Amino acid sequence: MQTLRVYLEPDEMPTHWYNVVSDLKNPPSPPLGPDGNPVPPEKMLAIFPMPLLEQEMSAERWIAIPEEVRQIYALWRPSPLCRALRLEEALGTPAKIFYKYEGVSPAGSHKPNSAVPQAYFNKVAGTKRLTTETGAGQWGSSIAFAGQMFGLPVRVYMVKVSYEQKPFRRSMMQTWGAEVFASPTNLTQAGRDALAKDPNSEGSLGIAISEAVEEAASQAGTCYTLGSVLNHVLLHQTVIGLEAKKQFEKIGLYPDSIFGPCGGGSSFGGIAFPFLADKAAGDKRAENLDCVAVEPSSCPTLTKGAYAYDFGDASGYTPLMKMYTLGHDFMPPGIHAGGLRYHGDSPLVSQLLHEKLIRAAAVPQVATFEAGVQFARSEGIIPAPESCHGIRAAIDEALRCKKTGEAKVILVNLTGHGHFDMASYDKYLAGKLEDYDYPSAAIADSLKHLPKVAA
Amino acid sequence: MQTLRVYLEPDEMPTHWYNVVSDLKNPPSPPLGPDGNPVPPEKMLAIFPMPLLEQEMSAERWIAIPEEVRQIYALWRPSPLCRALRLEEALGTPAKIFYKYEGVSPAGSHKPNSAVPQAYFNKVAGTKRLTTETGAGQWGSSIAFAGQMFGLPVRVYMVKVSYEQKPFRRSMMQTWGAEVFASPTNLTQAGRDALAKDPNSEGSLGIAISEAVEEAASQAGTCYTLGSVLNHVLLHQTVIGLEAKKQFEKIGLYPDSIFGPCGGGSSFGGIAFPFLADKAAGDKRAENLDCVAVEPSSCPTLTKGAYAYDFGDASGYTPLMKMYTLGHDFMPPGIHAGGLRYHGDSPLVSQLLHEKLIRAAAVPQVATFEAGVQFARSEGIIPAPESCHGIRAAIDEALRCKKTGEAKVILVNLTGHGHFDMASYDKYLAGKLEDYDYPSAAIADSLKHLPKVAA
Repeated sequence: MQTLRVYLEPDEMPTHWYNVVSDLKNPPSPPLGPDGNPVPPEKMLAIFPMPLLEQEMSAERWIAIPEEVRQIYALWRPSPLCRALRLEEALGTPAKIFYKYEGVSPAGSHKPNSAVPQAYFNKVAGTKRLTTETGAGQWGSSIAFAGQMFGLPVRVYMVKVSYEQKPFRRSMMQTWGAEVFASPTNLTQAGRDALAKDPNSEGSLGIAISEAVEEAASQAGTCYTLGSVLNHVLLHQTVIGLEAKKQFEKIGLYPDSIFGPCGGGSSFGGIAFPFLADKAAGDKRAENLDCVAVEPSSCPTLTKGAYAYDFGDASGYTPLMKMYTLGHDFMPPGIHAGGLRYHGDSPLVSQLLHEKLIRAAAVPQVATFEAGVQFARSEGIIPAPESCHGIRAAIDEALRCKKTGEAKVILVNLTGHGHFDMASYDKYLAGKLEDYDYPSAAIADSLKHLPKVAA
Repeated sequence: MQTLRVYLEPDEMPTHWYNVVSDLKNPPSPPLGPDGNPVPPEKMLAIFPMPLLEQEMSAERWIAIPEEVRQIYALWRPSPLCRALRLEEALGTPAKIFYKYEGVSPAGSHKPNSAVPQAYFNKVAGTKRLTTETGAGQWGSSIAFAGQMFGLPVRVYMVKVSYEQKPFRRSMMQTWGAEVFASPTNLTQAGRDALAKDPNSEGSLGIAISEAVEEAASQAGTCYTLGSVLNHVLLHQTVIGLEAKKQFEKIGLYPDSIFGPCGGGSSFGGIAFPFLADKAAGDKRAENLDCVAVEPSSCPTLTKGAYAYDFGDASGYTPLMKMYTLGHDFMPPGIHAGGLRYHGDSPLVSQLLHEKLIRAAAVPQVATFEAGVQFARSEGIIPAPESCHGIRAAIDEALRCKKTGEAKVILVNLTGHGHFDMASYDKYLAGKLEDYDYPSAAIADSLKHLPKVAA
């Protein structure tokens, strides 16, 4: 069995990110303000620096990756493209399964791919300090690392219950020099309001977002950062797929299907978009390419949600975005893949799905851990719970190929390692993990509360 | 700033391990039984398979790495050799600092380098099951992974207090399919004796070793595995230094000094021995090579211990080995680098030190975390507490170079990531970590209890 692990030489590394907007048949629907009109860029400038705002609204096909960003990427990139030969053998499939492993980054996930350019472009635009919110801490730790690389102080509003129960990623953020506060805090009006309402509040992502945005909007020199959903975040993540394309070129293969876990959309978009560029360009190899965004069946935004304008956050503070949504007040069950517990999805991923250029699939929780354990026992790497969703779908496709005898080439985005998530594996192995029923009543209910402009 | 990260092509990968015994001026002192006579190989065969025993006693210079082992190594090897440019800049040193990063393995440390061949050679020798002991779980998780790769069941006796307080590496072992028991257990006489003495025993590494060895010795087809100290373990770890040598060749450099953390000796030996081979061969580049084994000043085996025959374990069950030792009943303070809390050291590392071919240095705990945080903030990677010892010494050497203006090439073995050790960083950042006084009285006391044969 010849283990296959493909790297790139420094001169083969991507020099530009790929902007999928340039290949869309229809222009993206703009974010709307509470008045139903597109949000004026000036307003966005209160929380984002000009270079990132330009990327957010750009339709340019290629956007240069600055040398300074490429040098930080080079601390762990290229991430390896590996063939999962032992998994193929365990499955008895004729399919060839490849995984792109993003867990080699300092934070252990794909998130730094966008955190680094966000910190860089803020730095060059003169931003003095960054704010963000974080739940379990994947994004918070990534921006803490990235801010440190460019000498930018980072303040993280961490949902209080995670701050107290999941101290390890908080320690990571602090090790990288970030200030971390348990949200709600007394530092912002949003936080004080929440505490006035409930002095024992355990916090929520909605409150934490409000705190981070409020601080950025109200303080000169402070900007806000976000780890997924937005166009510029997905743009940065295309470094994953661009590397994978060159790695496949080196071994003379091309994927037939691509699977990525999908919560806010950054890891799926990151691996899939660059291959969709080939499809848009009429590349024969990509003609029948099947790109699948894989979500939890307990939070089935793409497979059961409405394609409509909705708030980006639970509390209704953000602009309205056109996307697949379960309704902004939909509360998903507490599954362990925290990174996939989002009521909405990236507007770009949503539009591609709506235009049938990609597919979506939903997988139940227990089956994702089953896939994660099978992957760990054959390939060694223990995947993050989010990553297990993509692996589940890839294994299912490989098993389908076993039946049909197809030797398809399958690519999956292995977005991170599970070393911070062993408590979830523990629960799974003890048989204490449950699947949640499809929350149809809750979804139907929250979809009733879509903001009016969506109609 | 041009980030430098060196890999190897598949055809550049080491095909043989380097056996430092072949270059020793004096043959290694043999392990002795309780009667003071060398332990007969037949006795060792009760717990080790023939191929590993042959390696343990071999004086061959090169020992082939089987193709099957190289294929598993290839799941994460070559590990990157990186230049720490940002750390150099932060220190303002003219020295060139390189680190060899072993945290990319599935278990997050260098331990699988020996776990994989141990599992392989057991498999080919017909072993049906492996046992081992583990404290915090670095070795236990590595052998769990390796056993799974070759279809060998693994049973781990995990010190009870760690089993209960550090559940994450236990979950890793179980994810890789190993059975993990909180030691002392009712499964062995040693365990039952310990429980009879104290039904609430929290366990100890000594008891856990006894349990694992007893099971291996008493059951046909069961063998015991160990993660450090022994000759064959250090042999396997030389893959680190052999890769590093080829990586340095590719960039036309050669190290002036090499730093490795040193507990049982496997990570230090792994990186240093292959360079010592050049020194032994009269290679001009290695003439003044300075290899430094770095240990905690609270457990100063190499710097304050006696060079004498002593038991490998606290309880006196193992053969006697000639090594630097603090006395087998020396109980080091509870420092956070659990992998370095060992009263003895590898006989090979000990002999090299005794023959003045290497040096040893001891560093205090708080300073190691200070170095770890400085490394994380400049290079991104958060090092394991064990690794912080090597980094501390490397930084000290770089600061010395700053004073003298020497542009020395420094190599440090970054043996693992600290993602399982954030609680220790948390304590450090909160100012709650302490240095321990040099435990001179305790050492003097335990050295009195060296077994008689040592005299």
